[in-house]
Amino acid sequence: MPSSPTPKSKVLVLGAGNFGSCLADHLGDSDHEVYLWSRHASFVEHFNLHHRNPDYLKDHIFSSNITAVGPEIPDRERIQQMDVVLFAIPTQGLRETLTKLRSSLVEDTLPLMIFVNKGIETSTQALTLEIIADTCGSEIARAATFISGPSFAKEIVRRQPTSVSVASLTESQAQRASEIFHQPWFRCYTGGDPIGLELAGALKNVYAIAAGMADGLGFENNTRASLITRGLAEMTRIGTAYGASPLTFLGLAGVGDLFLTCSSPTSRNYTVGYRLGKGEALEDIIMTLGSVAEGVTTAKGLKKIIDEMEVSASIANGIYEVLYEGKDVKTSVQELMCRPSSRELNLPDKAGEHAKRLLKKLGLDDTIA
Amino acid sequence: MPSSPTPKSKVLVLGAGNFGSCLADHLGDSDHEVYLWSRHASFVEHFNLHHRNPDYLKDHIFSSNITAVGPEIPDRERIQQMDVVLFAIPTQGLRETLTKLRSSLVEDTLPLMIFVNKGIETSTQALTLEIIADTCGSEIARAATFISGPSFAKEIVRRQPTSVSVASLTESQAQRASEIFHQPWFRCYTGGDPIGLELAGALKNVYAIAAGMADGLGFENNTRASLITRGLAEMTRIGTAYGASPLTFLGLAGVGDLFLTCSSPTSRNYTVGYRLGKGEALEDIIMTLGSVAEGVTTAKGLKKIIDEMEVSASIANGIYEVLYEGKDVKTSVQELMCRPSSRELNLPDKAGEHAKRLLKKLGLDDTIA
Repeated sequence: MPSSPTPKSKVLVLGAGNFGSCLADHLGDSDHEVYLWSRHASFVEHFNLHHRNPDYLKDHIFSSNITAVGPEIPDRERIQQMDVVLFAIPTQGLRETLTKLRSSLVEDTLPLMIFVNKGIETSTQALTLEIIADTCGSEIARAATFISGPSFAKEIVRRQPTSVSVASLTESQAQRASEIFHQPWFRCYTGGDPIGLELAGALKNVYAIAAGMADGLGFENNTRASLITRGLAEMTRIGTAYGASPLTFLGLAGVGDLFLTCSSPTSRNYTVGYRLGKGEALEDIIMTLGSVAEGVTTAKGLKKIIDEMEVSASIANGIYEVLYEGKDVKTSVQELMCRPSSRELNLPDKAGEHAKRLLKKLGLDDTIA
Repeated sequence: MPSSPTPKSKVLVLGAGNFGSCLADHLGDSDHEVYLWSRHASFVEHFNLHHRNPDYLKDHIFSSNITAVGPEIPDRERIQQMDVVLFAIPTQGLRETLTKLRSSLVEDTLPLMIFVNKGIETSTQALTLEIIADTCGSEIARAATFISGPSFAKEIVRRQPTSVSVASLTESQAQRASEIFHQPWFRCYTGGDPIGLELAGALKNVYAIAAGMADGLGFENNTRASLITRGLAEMTRIGTAYGASPLTFLGLAGVGDLFLTCSSPTSRNYTVGYRLGKGEALEDIIMTLGSVAEGVTTAKGLKKIIDEMEVSASIANGIYEVLYEGKDVKTSVQELMCRPSSRELNLPDKAGEHAKRLLKKLGLDDTIA
């Protein structure tokens, strides 16, 4: 096994789902000492016995440098031993988990905190950065680091070359995270716009639904490329109005992940759109998928953000109408394609009220890093 | 047939290839009076008899509003009757054609001149905008309008919804072109950065070779998405160093066309890369393709531009080494994927010398529109 180029770290991965366990494997294989937490006792027992995940990536034998822990949430002592805590739990459960962990996070021995969850908190429309500020305070939020990009777990465990964006308001923390993850087959690109990175990761799922819808309706390559490009422009416009840097949407977390999600028939969000395009009802699709695809939830929160910011977002509005107001899919896509011509990439003049408010919460001026 | 929403125009389309004839069909079907020029007498005769193109889009019956003309280049009288002249001839032949037409272009009755060719002039590394300035003078170049975007001809003739970018240094001209082309199934987005639009259209073919190479070598979705994203960042960096607006690369002519070209196994440039990845020799690929794919030629001109500007462009350099220096494909892709981590989207500080020089030639200040 190749040695890691950086000193060996103790890493706690919270969440043993598809993405959490593949990252634990990658870090273990990079010679870090990894603890993988699950809330299920049966998982912990099974994993430590067989080094396999009974629920995800079932064919893969995981790195022997991983120890499964749980089902109780790790205590203050274990957290304080860690160099890194990686959060790979769903956004909707993050506030509760962080609240429980808060007392274990002592500023002098604070681990590097990395977040790989995506999406907007449904009840508040908060980004993860805001959830961290609310639960752990502004200092911890400012040091929090986020990873996003085109990265199917099943390809990461096969060491397929993968690149991701790593962003933090404290760029030295992004650099640290990058060094811990970096391997010849896993490249990290650092940046200072976690708000843009988070928005890109959440919003792309809504546009994957749109791409699936167009394909389901039988439209071809020109239409698909146009819809994805217009989707990217719309994401960028929403992000800029929110206060993110437009250039973040040109990166791996933006166009890279959008491209991956919209090109993959196995993506859950694309599938929802495709089946809507084929004429199936949303309830039936959700029933057979087993759970709600993330873009369906995000479309709802996004609608509130768009309306509040008064930003033009015809694709996101169209998806919302199809999902929540029973609008006909074909009519909606036709309307999107037949809007009058306009200037490309109209970015808003007055931008960033949302981010300004959030940065103020973080104790920062209204300057975007 | 639906009436055009704008007054009927007289349009001369120069070049009856795949793209020229599909645009002629679109404009004819939009009720414009269209003349389609070919340098081949046999084409003119065949087309006017059957309303079919014997070489491209063979299954399609073309609009009855098109008259084929030629083989002599249209004379001054015909040019002066035209509202629009659309250039759909290869970049390498453009200087010669414009030189012949120059005396027919009278400033008082100057038609709207639209260019849809892509690529860099091999012998000079000039963009089309510069070729126009050299042959017709700065006033005509400033009014020239460019169209680019994800638009397969075979889908345009089937009226698949298609969107394109339309750019000119004189935005009223871009607006005019947009109105002539606009239909519910054909959307035009206007902009003021023809240099960026041209560079995006030329460069994307080089990155399509790279995407094909990675697929040919057996890499999967993460790698492909990463390579396309890094390619887009590199295109943007080169374009910005040249003097284009980085945001142009986020649009239909940039990410849209890159996405289309890299996703389509029928694209000639992608095919060259794919077969190189599978281990075939370039000569053999070119022999069976029948002609050189545009990206192969562009990679050579691009290398000179990159070296002159001293801009970092590892993908374009890697493709150049494989195509022209006999470097092993696998080694080259491995090196690309294993470069050290870095900041995402490092745009150059000192940008735009090339564009400044060109804009000076156009009689404009060094301000980008």
